[in-house]
Amino acid sequence: MSRPLIFISNDDSIWAPGIRELVNVAKQFGDVIVVAPEIPQSGQGHAVTIKKPIRIKKVDVFDGIESWAVSGTPADCVKIAKDILVIEQNVDLVLSGINHGSNSSINILYSGTMSAAMEGALEGKNSIGFSLDDFSQQADFTASRHYAEILIDNVLNGSFSEPILLNVNIPKLSLEEIKGMKVCRQARGKWVDEFSESLDPRGVPYYWLTGEFKNQEKNATDTDLWALKNGYVSVVPTCFDLTRHEHINKLKFLEK
Amino acid sequence: MSRPLIFISNDDSIWAPGIRELVNVAKQFGDVIVVAPEIPQSGQGHAVTIKKPIRIKKVDVFDGIESWAVSGTPADCVKIAKDILVIEQNVDLVLSGINHGSNSSINILYSGTMSAAMEGALEGKNSIGFSLDDFSQQADFTASRHYAEILIDNVLNGSFSEPILLNVNIPKLSLEEIKGMKVCRQARGKWVDEFSESLDPRGVPYYWLTGEFKNQEKNATDTDLWALKNGYVSVVPTCFDLTRHEHINKLKFLEK
Repeated sequence: MSRPLIFISNDDSIWAPGIRELVNVAKQFGDVIVVAPEIPQSGQGHAVTIKKPIRIKKVDVFDGIESWAVSGTPADCVKIAKDILVIEQNVDLVLSGINHGSNSSINILYSGTMSAAMEGALEGKNSIGFSLDDFSQQADFTASRHYAEILIDNVLNGSFSEPILLNVNIPKLSLEEIKGMKVCRQARGKWVDEFSESLDPRGVPYYWLTGEFKNQEKNATDTDLWALKNGYVSVVPTCFDLTRHEHINKLKFLEK
Repeated sequence: MSRPLIFISNDDSIWAPGIRELVNVAKQFGDVIVVAPEIPQSGQGHAVTIKKPIRIKKVDVFDGIESWAVSGTPADCVKIAKDILVIEQNVDLVLSGINHGSNSSINILYSGTMSAAMEGALEGKNSIGFSLDDFSQQADFTASRHYAEILIDNVLNGSFSEPILLNVNIPKLSLEEIKGMKVCRQARGKWVDEFSESLDPRGVPYYWLTGEFKNQEKNATDTDLWALKNGYVSVVPTCFDLTRHEHINKLKFLEK
């Protein structure tokens, strides 16, 4: 009758406030092991480290919790946990986050947070990525902790009939202001005016990624962007099959 | 009656043989502009450069073709083309590759090649990523060129009724050996034994990503891995909506 084993990673690094919050929630439910990047990895998407080696270092960051800092990406962390630390096979739940900043809509594509969760799902594990729509290092994680508790409890109590991969985003609101969870789909959105242009001290231009995010489905009420805007926690069931299945038959003419 | 404008990027860098092959095919069909990474970006997935600025440099790599080398990822290249070079709005087709190495099955998640194509699709453009299942710098691109021609021709002649995003993988076979194209779905697969462990000169261990890829659907005959193994070019229609739609209703109980 051992306790569940909960694996935690993130993309803001093992030193970020958000992962500490998630560890504090998870340790109420089971044994926790943390394998997370040594250096922030925001925007790394599903990158893996190929051209150079990876280092791992046992660190003492969370009281009494086995923790490893990894010199790679979030996806690397889950892979290292599986193959080198050999813990993956015993893991009951993979968590990632709590990210400082939203990963709603198409931002899941750029999200290191969700890449760690997706690596867990590739191994057949229940996996959840949490992101709070607040970049501040002083962000209030009260509501995030509350909904993380509910979701972790549901997974460990067997509420889901098959393995799930969830992209959970929490609005920047107090627990009292949040109306609950909405299970929804990824909104279609896009970034516009993405670069700020400046001149370096030698007069050579450089470009820095920034931009404004546009919801391209402003009238839809079943999307994550709608949920967040209307005071709900968005819960998007996610997959790693990128096939556009409905196009397969339409394109069969190419086979002739 | 202007010629079509074809945008090309990749992840092996603007100096790679594969992108030269793609440029040579595309310039038969229209005007070509190349915006590609200065340095190889394999395994970068959908990473974007956030923490440092990006530089762009006009280069003369392909005879008479406007070409830019970018200090960032494949996704950065498409974003720069859209917002700084301001060419995206006139583009009729976004191509990426030809990658040196396969991007079939779940490897699409790690693929810089497909992230550039996906960025094109996010802008509503027809987009195709090409990958040849051969890592050699001396790889034979004859068959790849042939199928690229067929697909580019189909796009520009309006064979597709709505914008398409295709993940095209070419087996390491001669043109005569290849049986044709298969329009198929992404196979479920996974990497095992992913790291080689060594000791550095100071006796400290380091880990290098390697591993073996396993097809988890060996009996399926409708997947890209099946197609490639059986002598076909695999054409997987791809999307950027990662929602697992069939799970939405199953998880609605979380809303109560």
